[in-house]
Amino acid sequence: MGSERRSIGIGLLGLGVVGAGVARILQEKAAVYARQIGYPLEIRRVLVRDPKKPRDVAVDPALITTNVREILEDPGVEMVIEVMGGEQPAYGYLLEALQAGKFVVTANKEVMAKHGAELLATARQRNVDLLYEASVGGGIPIIAPLKRDLLANDILSVTAIINGTTNYILTAMSRGVGSFDEVLADAQRLGYAESDPTNDVEGIDASYKLSILATLAFHMDVHPEHVYREGITKLAERDFAYARELGYAIKLLAIARKRDGAVELRVHPTLVPQDALLANVDGVLNAVEIEGDLMSRVLFQGPGAGSLPTTSAVVADALDAAVSISNSVYWPHSFRREAGLRVVPIDDVRSRYYLRLRVADQPGVLARIAGVLADARISIASVIQRELEGDGTAELVMMTHEAPEADLRRALDGMRALEGVDAVETMLRVRP
Amino acid sequence: MGSERRSIGIGLLGLGVVGAGVARILQEKAAVYARQIGYPLEIRRVLVRDPKKPRDVAVDPALITTNVREILEDPGVEMVIEVMGGEQPAYGYLLEALQAGKFVVTANKEVMAKHGAELLATARQRNVDLLYEASVGGGIPIIAPLKRDLLANDILSVTAIINGTTNYILTAMSRGVGSFDEVLADAQRLGYAESDPTNDVEGIDASYKLSILATLAFHMDVHPEHVYREGITKLAERDFAYARELGYAIKLLAIARKRDGAVELRVHPTLVPQDALLANVDGVLNAVEIEGDLMSRVLFQGPGAGSLPTTSAVVADALDAAVSISNSVYWPHSFRREAGLRVVPIDDVRSRYYLRLRVADQPGVLARIAGVLADARISIASVIQRELEGDGTAELVMMTHEAPEADLRRALDGMRALEGVDAVETMLRVRP
Repeated sequence: MGSERRSIGIGLLGLGVVGAGVARILQEKAAVYARQIGYPLEIRRVLVRDPKKPRDVAVDPALITTNVREILEDPGVEMVIEVMGGEQPAYGYLLEALQAGKFVVTANKEVMAKHGAELLATARQRNVDLLYEASVGGGIPIIAPLKRDLLANDILSVTAIINGTTNYILTAMSRGVGSFDEVLADAQRLGYAESDPTNDVEGIDASYKLSILATLAFHMDVHPEHVYREGITKLAERDFAYARELGYAIKLLAIARKRDGAVELRVHPTLVPQDALLANVDGVLNAVEIEGDLMSRVLFQGPGAGSLPTTSAVVADALDAAVSISNSVYWPHSFRREAGLRVVPIDDVRSRYYLRLRVADQPGVLARIAGVLADARISIASVIQRELEGDGTAELVMMTHEAPEADLRRALDGMRALEGVDAVETMLRVRP
Repeated sequence: MGSERRSIGIGLLGLGVVGAGVARILQEKAAVYARQIGYPLEIRRVLVRDPKKPRDVAVDPALITTNVREILEDPGVEMVIEVMGGEQPAYGYLLEALQAGKFVVTANKEVMAKHGAELLATARQRNVDLLYEASVGGGIPIIAPLKRDLLANDILSVTAIINGTTNYILTAMSRGVGSFDEVLADAQRLGYAESDPTNDVEGIDASYKLSILATLAFHMDVHPEHVYREGITKLAERDFAYARELGYAIKLLAIARKRDGAVELRVHPTLVPQDALLANVDGVLNAVEIEGDLMSRVLFQGPGAGSLPTTSAVVADALDAAVSISNSVYWPHSFRREAGLRVVPIDDVRSRYYLRLRVADQPGVLARIAGVLADARISIASVIQRELEGDGTAELVMMTHEAPEADLRRALDGMRALEGVDAVETMLRVRP
């Protein structure tokens, strides 16, 4: 458009909670943004599924369309902002927008986790940018600082609480509010959990976000299926009490960690020492800790979801893209791929472990269990044994020293086969 | 230099701990950085005071100079990295470098706090960038994210622990390690405090950093003398015990806060609720909490000092500048000034207060003190009274509800004049 430019044309895909927030903020702050960028940002078209649905934002009805072609094929749309969510049709639209040479801003973690590498490569080929700050950590600036710090640092690890629903549930359980099912029902009533909570409580959402962060941090194509994943549905209230007694909180951590030229990728409930900052990130808050060879450990913490924080991240990206568009220049961050980086199988991950077993309250059981651990060359750090409600069973909680997971699993099989061991109720890893 | 470019020429001012770190990292990571930027970063000259001093970094002796003209007048030096510290001569060198059209990276908080507005204006005129990430918060990325988030958000407040020395001392005192003087002596032995600790313990260093953050956050020229400042030298160990009993930690907070079109700017020891994240930032760590109208509260936490973290911030800035230089383009962030923003005098700041008084252990004293507070229309939230070592005196600790500071100061004068009041030992504000 060059010297005849009058504004920067935007096509908005989606007008749900975040889409309405973006439309409203672009209107409310239009004058400020225009002064900062040099041109006004102009929404030229808004794609919706149902144009009749009442919305809590005043968008000129003439802008509303149900036909995505009116956006993808309009040369006046230089930037597409996607806030529809879900893999399809969003993925197809974004790919096409990039191929058409449009800048893209997206909040879509599923698309970025599954197709990020391809979309970023397409953006590079077309010399446009694909920005996705809102896909991880809501209002927390994490993608942009990570890109920048990456330039100077080798990233050694990313450790994150990146799912607000599960952090809300774990925080409530740790405060004795109730069982998993009870707290989940509360969260659903309050709108913190969806009616089908699978994506959150099974760690799927966290594995998407970890894939996005690890792809960026380690210069490798990480897909959600590379991430070892365990959810929080099997945790019992008593695990939180024992963890506290031992000096730990239980958090659903997403961990990506370089070790000997390979990368650990895992999402699972984890014991975190009470004095660690991540142990004190409670409720729906998110936090991401980045460890670099120069910068040491830096923590970013804030609201991981919500309309306004997510809107903030989307608008910051849109303004970034607008600067590139208005200057007709864009410098692509280096997307070098590190050859030879492989994913560590969970069997080879070394960790300390928390174990809770239900055993017969009789002599010799502890000795036999200790023997099984010794055979697997796993040493015990501490033991708590408690009688249960006089039914002849006891509860045994053990913390081990570090061992490879394969050895621990073999030992657990051995314990289950022992006389006097009713069940291995819980196995949790301790934060590295 | 255009198409004939072969490298990006750097002049390094200073080869102390951070300077040596920068020189070493630019050597060690030369190949990675060259791949990312497209050109190698080449140190062409290093300014030192004493060329004979032994250094723990291998810099080609031919690059060492004691004559700053060899850097400022060399057209091959496109970027000046300043890591000398101190106001002069650094300020003069930076101004001249910018006037000569060189990009500048600095870690100098004193220069940025006192002359930042002038230097940034000079950079804009010459169409170059002045980057200063390392001047606040060491390795924590805070300036760059703040610039970016500023685009989308109105910043409402900045609340920070930005001096590692004082945070180390306060953390140790809260753990009962000893008195201020004892803990300071420890910190000096460990290298966490300088032999003349004035700049740190009186909050001067924190006021520099707050000036830099507030200038950026509120689009106004904040100078250190605008910042109300109290140090930590008068805190007693018993204050930490009382604070804990009342549910608070004591932290030296730097606070910049917009209120009714004016800005509060203050550095002072502050009671922070124990469950707030800032209360749990211990030791030499730094943390900055930014509150925006969209993004809500986001916390950045990490190592506030140290050679490698500071080097990380300087090198990240240098790479940013290199990208601009190699693309021959630079987009200046908006430096709009908000007219009419004024600084709130400390007398008008409203706060809750913690008071500790030494009083005669006799009937009627508490009633007279409560009367003085009532006359100033300050209401009491809680009271602890303790007998002291049988010498006929008692200690009275009170928490008040919110009141303007002028009213509280009048009440304190009234108390000091009361019969039975020996001394007002401590007055602390509570975090807003």
